[in-house]
Amino acid sequence: MITLHNENLSQIANEHGLSEGEIERESALLGTYLKQIHERKQGFYSIIEDESLLEKVNSFAANAEGKYDHFVVLGIGGSSLGTICLQQSLTHLYAKPRLFVLDNIDPVMMNEIQDVIQLERTLFIVVTKSGGTPETLSEYMYFRNLCNNADLDPKEHFVFITDPENGFLRKTANDEGIISFEVPPNVGGRFSVLTHVGLLPARLIGLKVEELLKGANAMKELFLSDNPEKNLPFKLATIQCLLAKKGKPMNVLTPYAQKLIRFADWYRQLLAESVGKKVNNKGEEVNVGITPINALGATDQHSQSQLYNEGPNDKLHIFMRVKNMGIETPIPDLYPEEESLNYLKGVTFSKLIHTEMEGTVQSLTQNDRPNITLEIDEINEHTLGELFLLFEGATAFLGEFFNINAFDQPGVELSKQITKKLLS
Amino acid sequence: MITLHNENLSQIANEHGLSEGEIERESALLGTYLKQIHERKQGFYSIIEDESLLEKVNSFAANAEGKYDHFVVLGIGGSSLGTICLQQSLTHLYAKPRLFVLDNIDPVMMNEIQDVIQLERTLFIVVTKSGGTPETLSEYMYFRNLCNNADLDPKEHFVFITDPENGFLRKTANDEGIISFEVPPNVGGRFSVLTHVGLLPARLIGLKVEELLKGANAMKELFLSDNPEKNLPFKLATIQCLLAKKGKPMNVLTPYAQKLIRFADWYRQLLAESVGKKVNNKGEEVNVGITPINALGATDQHSQSQLYNEGPNDKLHIFMRVKNMGIETPIPDLYPEEESLNYLKGVTFSKLIHTEMEGTVQSLTQNDRPNITLEIDEINEHTLGELFLLFEGATAFLGEFFNINAFDQPGVELSKQITKKLLS
Repeated sequence: MITLHNENLSQIANEHGLSEGEIERESALLGTYLKQIHERKQGFYSIIEDESLLEKVNSFAANAEGKYDHFVVLGIGGSSLGTICLQQSLTHLYAKPRLFVLDNIDPVMMNEIQDVIQLERTLFIVVTKSGGTPETLSEYMYFRNLCNNADLDPKEHFVFITDPENGFLRKTANDEGIISFEVPPNVGGRFSVLTHVGLLPARLIGLKVEELLKGANAMKELFLSDNPEKNLPFKLATIQCLLAKKGKPMNVLTPYAQKLIRFADWYRQLLAESVGKKVNNKGEEVNVGITPINALGATDQHSQSQLYNEGPNDKLHIFMRVKNMGIETPIPDLYPEEESLNYLKGVTFSKLIHTEMEGTVQSLTQNDRPNITLEIDEINEHTLGELFLLFEGATAFLGEFFNINAFDQPGVELSKQITKKLLS
Repeated sequence: MITLHNENLSQIANEHGLSEGEIERESALLGTYLKQIHERKQGFYSIIEDESLLEKVNSFAANAEGKYDHFVVLGIGGSSLGTICLQQSLTHLYAKPRLFVLDNIDPVMMNEIQDVIQLERTLFIVVTKSGGTPETLSEYMYFRNLCNNADLDPKEHFVFITDPENGFLRKTANDEGIISFEVPPNVGGRFSVLTHVGLLPARLIGLKVEELLKGANAMKELFLSDNPEKNLPFKLATIQCLLAKKGKPMNVLTPYAQKLIRFADWYRQLLAESVGKKVNNKGEEVNVGITPINALGATDQHSQSQLYNEGPNDKLHIFMRVKNMGIETPIPDLYPEEESLNYLKGVTFSKLIHTEMEGTVQSLTQNDRPNITLEIDEINEHTLGELFLLFEGATAFLGEFFNINAFDQPGVELSKQITKKLLS
């Protein structure tokens, strides 16, 4: 269950706030927008119902059991950010078997990962939707070459996740008999965390992938509801859009939980690539977009709060609060005589982090800085599934609000062309 | 040696660009601004000349040699971000002895670090300038309590870095005879990486701290130069300020090197806290500020490039290019028949990452997105020292450009007061 608290918006009684009336006025658009979203024929919310999705993942994982100490995902952007988020959110910092995600082509990073894995105990998961991403294929050839030189059977050390029919990686899987998984053509990379792209690595490191999908399906119910009271993704998008139009072109996502630090990185791609567009559906040049900013509580109170409270009032703050942190650790009262520490007496670390968030939120509100809070019960697979679909759904609605296509990315082509030309 | 390339700004021949003439016109301000900066009596550029700075660090480190497998920094914001940056930039991902930086009060994170350290082989470095930061003191009491319960001598397992005279931590050091280091009162937390705050942890994990200071002193020469041709920090600040005034209130810092990923986090605090201010030097309400955004090449091409190329034209892009990546790894040509991979033939990973950056930069320029590049020879202690002082110096100049005090942070007090009130 995710609860959206947006009371503080109406507490700000000037142009920086948002009244309930303003939000409700947009409700009339819900039906039309839902229809438009269906017409775009995107698979991110239907694929999660496909029960066969987990069969292949579970059977592969059962077969892999005990064979590997290291899993290395080779992928970038939508092929890696969801996996990084799942690993960081739901596994121990030093869990085994160890998963590495190589999402850069920096040779130093590659070397350092190579230093700590043993090839014969490693499975490389090569993820590229198109099957042609140069960064991923370069890394693949590098590690494939190492395995070849060590006489290791590629069928035991590589698995591919790519388009079901097209691209170099699909062809290679067919030619060489390497086990492969599919990214459905109608699910964009940045919407693909709940396909095999995220589910396979998640299952291999022991996550409850069934729960991820259950959570996502629960949120899907809300996302497809034509009742604006129930449709949480629509309400979130409404707030984001109205405030963007009121001069808040930045959205700061601040979970108050260390484990969720990489959730904001996943969301950065989703929001930036989906909504940042030059032309609208009518072909007019509009250059719209919301700039996502990642932050973390309580840490960034000591880094960003000064700007957020006193700088230009140009941001919507989206906080994430975890009701049950899982551990109730009291702060020991080692210096009972010290008056300056009195306020920490009898306080747990959970209570401290929750209270610091409350202090931050109240301070922003008093300074007329619009903020909302998403509250979750605890960090687990079910919640993560809900959160992924909440933000994906809201992003789909944002596309309709801005009258743009949220599912393409034409603006990245130019740099790719220049790069290829410079290399040739 | 750091080279600033700003040619692309004048290639953009409209309101989004910046001509050489516009930049040069600001040169007249340099003398006045230098004088004003001196009058603020900040120590961040004089402390680095103090040769005694390293004596205590070196002698402590010599004494600690072989005694610890784990170092844990307890600190937040300016007490941790520089250290995290140094560790990530200059040590192997899995270097030993291992340094952990606990910069959050999340009880889950604390537990996970506790799981992997052995108390009897751990040194806790407690860092708080004021000596009263609640997050840091809570963590300190937690780990101190664990050590007490295990009958470990606190003098062997704790060291403090704090104000030379004031605060709870200084008092505790004196009362209990715990070794302590000093943060000079005239060096703000976010400017303190080149004091004992950053130097002690850096030295303990084997970094060449002398070179850090040498690099910083080399940049200091430029920072204090009244010749605008030489003064790199002034030129950087000029560009940041002029473009902020031309509707670019965001600065995206994008190093194209995985090792520099945390440099941008360090810079986020420096820029956000220093320049984000409600009132100017005359006491007028101005709400100025530049919002820093962290990015990473080539990874974020697959996350943020779409927005940066096509969204609102509201950002200055600062790229960081590393000439010598240290490793020349060729991309193996495993599929010589595959035409779609032809452009990777004979290419190294360094060449690929450099060319992708060039493609990104050219694409942004063609789309009228202002961008500059800082080029460094390689990632080492000397360069990091230069970079720290380059950005610190530029930030000091930005304070003068915006006519605000870059060295205070009044906007964080309100949330602290509310938090204390809520806890009591």
